[in-house]
Amino acid sequence: MSLFKHLLRNPTAKSYSYSSPSIIMPSNLILTCLSHFTTDASPSTVQLTQYSGLGPTKANEKPRVVVLGSGWAGCRLMKGIDTSLYDVVCVSPRNHMVFTPLLASTCVGTLEFRSVAEPIARIQPAISREPGSYFFLSHCAGIDTDNHVGFDGSSLVIGVICGSVMILDRNAGSVHCETVTDELRTLEPWKFKISYDKLVIALGAEASTFGIHGVKENAIFLREVHHAQEIRRKLLLNLMMSDVPGISEEEKSRLLHCVVVGGGPTGVEFSGELSDFIMRDVRQRYSHVKDYIHVTLIEANEILSSFDDRLRHYATKQLSKSGVRLVRGIVKDVDSQKLILNDGTEVPYGLLVWSTGVGPSTLVKSLDLPKSPGGRIGIDEWLRVPSVQDVFAVGDCSGYLESTGKTVLPALAQVAERQGKYLFSLLNRIGKAGGGRANSAKDMELGDPFVYRHLGSMATIGRYKALVDLRQNKPLDCVTSLWCGYLKETKRVENGSELANGLRGRFVRLN
Amino acid sequence: MSLFKHLLRNPTAKSYSYSSPSIIMPSNLILTCLSHFTTDASPSTVQLTQYSGLGPTKANEKPRVVVLGSGWAGCRLMKGIDTSLYDVVCVSPRNHMVFTPLLASTCVGTLEFRSVAEPIARIQPAISREPGSYFFLSHCAGIDTDNHVGFDGSSLVIGVICGSVMILDRNAGSVHCETVTDELRTLEPWKFKISYDKLVIALGAEASTFGIHGVKENAIFLREVHHAQEIRRKLLLNLMMSDVPGISEEEKSRLLHCVVVGGGPTGVEFSGELSDFIMRDVRQRYSHVKDYIHVTLIEANEILSSFDDRLRHYATKQLSKSGVRLVRGIVKDVDSQKLILNDGTEVPYGLLVWSTGVGPSTLVKSLDLPKSPGGRIGIDEWLRVPSVQDVFAVGDCSGYLESTGKTVLPALAQVAERQGKYLFSLLNRIGKAGGGRANSAKDMELGDPFVYRHLGSMATIGRYKALVDLRQNKPLDCVTSLWCGYLKETKRVENGSELANGLRGRFVRLN
Repeated sequence: MSLFKHLLRNPTAKSYSYSSPSIIMPSNLILTCLSHFTTDASPSTVQLTQYSGLGPTKANEKPRVVVLGSGWAGCRLMKGIDTSLYDVVCVSPRNHMVFTPLLASTCVGTLEFRSVAEPIARIQPAISREPGSYFFLSHCAGIDTDNHVGFDGSSLVIGVICGSVMILDRNAGSVHCETVTDELRTLEPWKFKISYDKLVIALGAEASTFGIHGVKENAIFLREVHHAQEIRRKLLLNLMMSDVPGISEEEKSRLLHCVVVGGGPTGVEFSGELSDFIMRDVRQRYSHVKDYIHVTLIEANEILSSFDDRLRHYATKQLSKSGVRLVRGIVKDVDSQKLILNDGTEVPYGLLVWSTGVGPSTLVKSLDLPKSPGGRIGIDEWLRVPSVQDVFAVGDCSGYLESTGKTVLPALAQVAERQGKYLFSLLNRIGKAGGGRANSAKDMELGDPFVYRHLGSMATIGRYKALVDLRQNKPLDCVTSLWCGYLKETKRVENGSELANGLRGRFVRLN
Repeated sequence: MSLFKHLLRNPTAKSYSYSSPSIIMPSNLILTCLSHFTTDASPSTVQLTQYSGLGPTKANEKPRVVVLGSGWAGCRLMKGIDTSLYDVVCVSPRNHMVFTPLLASTCVGTLEFRSVAEPIARIQPAISREPGSYFFLSHCAGIDTDNHVGFDGSSLVIGVICGSVMILDRNAGSVHCETVTDELRTLEPWKFKISYDKLVIALGAEASTFGIHGVKENAIFLREVHHAQEIRRKLLLNLMMSDVPGISEEEKSRLLHCVVVGGGPTGVEFSGELSDFIMRDVRQRYSHVKDYIHVTLIEANEILSSFDDRLRHYATKQLSKSGVRLVRGIVKDVDSQKLILNDGTEVPYGLLVWSTGVGPSTLVKSLDLPKSPGGRIGIDEWLRVPSVQDVFAVGDCSGYLESTGKTVLPALAQVAERQGKYLFSLLNRIGKAGGGRANSAKDMELGDPFVYRHLGSMATIGRYKALVDLRQNKPLDCVTSLWCGYLKETKRVENGSELANGLRGRFVRLN
């Protein structure tokens, strides 16, 4: 138990004798030896109790919202949450949000990596300023909802220290965390736990590999900035390697064969970007090898299966015009230099990008919470996990429970973003009504449930062309301007392909 | 021996059956299987003779200048070389030039990494466009000057193929190379050799560690873009790690203790940037831990020893004001979390940057060429390596031979840059006079030798302040405007500190 505010430090840890940075400055410029460091210092190992952390909030503190994840849902929620009502603690292995629709453009240098990543501290500045708000670069290792007793006083332990009555212990639900130290070879991961008043699970999903051997080891996904960096590095290295004297024609073609598996929007957009890159940059800057580079897009069914038939047809034609080879096939096995299709065809590659959709993460699968069809965390119409108090789930990790009678929403940014928006409004309303503390919103009226309206789908296909499918959308004009606003950032928008006439599946051609 | 132009391919390598990207597009959108890939394809291993490569240039080709390295000297030379006279082949493990004076600013986000790196292909576009010019991402493994016989015909072998008389073999000096494949796990390094008509050695130097144990393993140098990236990543990770609940005060101080070893311009500039970063960004964006972060600069003698006393004194005062702790000490040993000084003092650190100057690289040491005092490649006044024909050395890897009676020039960008400039003029003149081929400029008059005039030294010290020492410079006005031009890019320049009056050591204060 700790007397420090918020940080449950190990009471046995020695105080560090680091002096303030005041320095005795000799006028003759001869510098003194550093007397600040003790020569008999004990090794600076970390002494931690197994699970120190942030304990339950006290009466003089704001209630704490713990957000797991920093994707579309979590970040939208953090951006809108009222920090005069709540302290916000975010736990994520990523200290920034990725604007995923533009990730493919960073692989070939169209956009800078920084342009598609926004630091959490800029999305919600309170996180780095408020004394009770934090960002922790950590994985969530588990969630303990059993002890969520909260502020009803049933398990409070009251004591007197230095003449003041203090709450010494109180049980609350908590999140078990483990720091991400992959890049710091000098550190072991640390474990700690964070108690919550409200918990928002926004853990996202994992790339699907369908258990195909060799995918994880050899393919690159396209979900994080570091994936895009790896793709760019590998692409450039392959271009340079293929120009080395003595390399065989066969090896040159292999190195410069870029294979994309998965014909959803991500795969199609990346293929389009890649063919743009080949047509412009490679021809100009790698002219020695320009005739060797090719792009193949492998899809088991049809590309862009969620789009209207006519848009699909158009996309197929355009991609082929750009030199993208479209292949229908199922990948059976992947090794480091080739993949094997179901019919035995061997496809040598130099770069393999895998984008066959997403599924529940290992952590989500392991959580002892009710699940929706498809294995996501089950939620009700208010995005609550109904079996436990004060726990919500949003974005790709969550799905409507069968009991709600609603179908699970697709794993899309626009779903996650709007769930985040809905939930911060709900939490702000609860907070204002005095229900911010653990277990204090039990019988509160929550108002309108979350309703999702699909605004439309878009996919760019290279050469300043894009598809917009608005079939499921009601207010057409508003949506067109929404997408166009986004597109205009890079290119002039011009309406009016033949597909745009008199139908709900509308096409926007970018000049 | 090969019949292909330039690329000495292995005659046993099979031609790759990769078809052109024309695709049969079924109108019903069902994609065909890929018949382009043979299912019985042999494994796409590389079949190489041990040393294939670029053979001696033929009569109908331009003479070839091979440049080893892509630093200040090599890039300045490539930028100015007349590509109508020469083909240029650059061999370097780095496909870009680094503007080293601004590298420190990228570590803390003041500048983007891309802003300080310029691709070779942009410095000399012919390298990626001309059929005989190349950039090879490779290490130089050795130089063979013994066979440099060249175009005098003494060792030519003439044959008749397809009715044409062809030069089948001719000896020439060559460079042995090995591709850099560290980042491509799937590839083994390849060996090849490149014959030269003229060879420019611009291999640079290596960071000095003085044989101190643990430096290479634990410290980060500040010479390449990836070093700056590593520093930035580690700094941010340490900032986040130190905020994790449960961490001891001691560990927090260790993680946030940035130690710089070496008080030359690089160490001082980095310390200044770091203290700026702490005063602005850390206070604002990492306010939880802002009081724990400190910078210590360790130097065995005096900081900025090449600068005027008064400038040094000013720098010391300013750095201390910024909170940089200046320590005189000699590092004895480095481990992963602390370093030990000669007097036994232990200095725990979270980030260790090493900048104690440079020395000859392992390759330079191994070359069987005459050496200058200090072990660099010995050159005469025309930057030639006098013992062999057509070989020149520029930049940090080279130094005047004792026989020239001149002192070895300091390892500075301005020396390298001006040597590169001098040498491309010399080579262009030789080329125009018909001496571009191997051994054909033996008795040519080379004109004026290279003369170095030091234009002055500059070091930024943070908080928009910098030192400029012009003691050794003659034409003051021209130099002041040179430096100011560089500085003005970021800040307004204002002359006139008290140190600027009536002395050659002049001070420029940036407001």
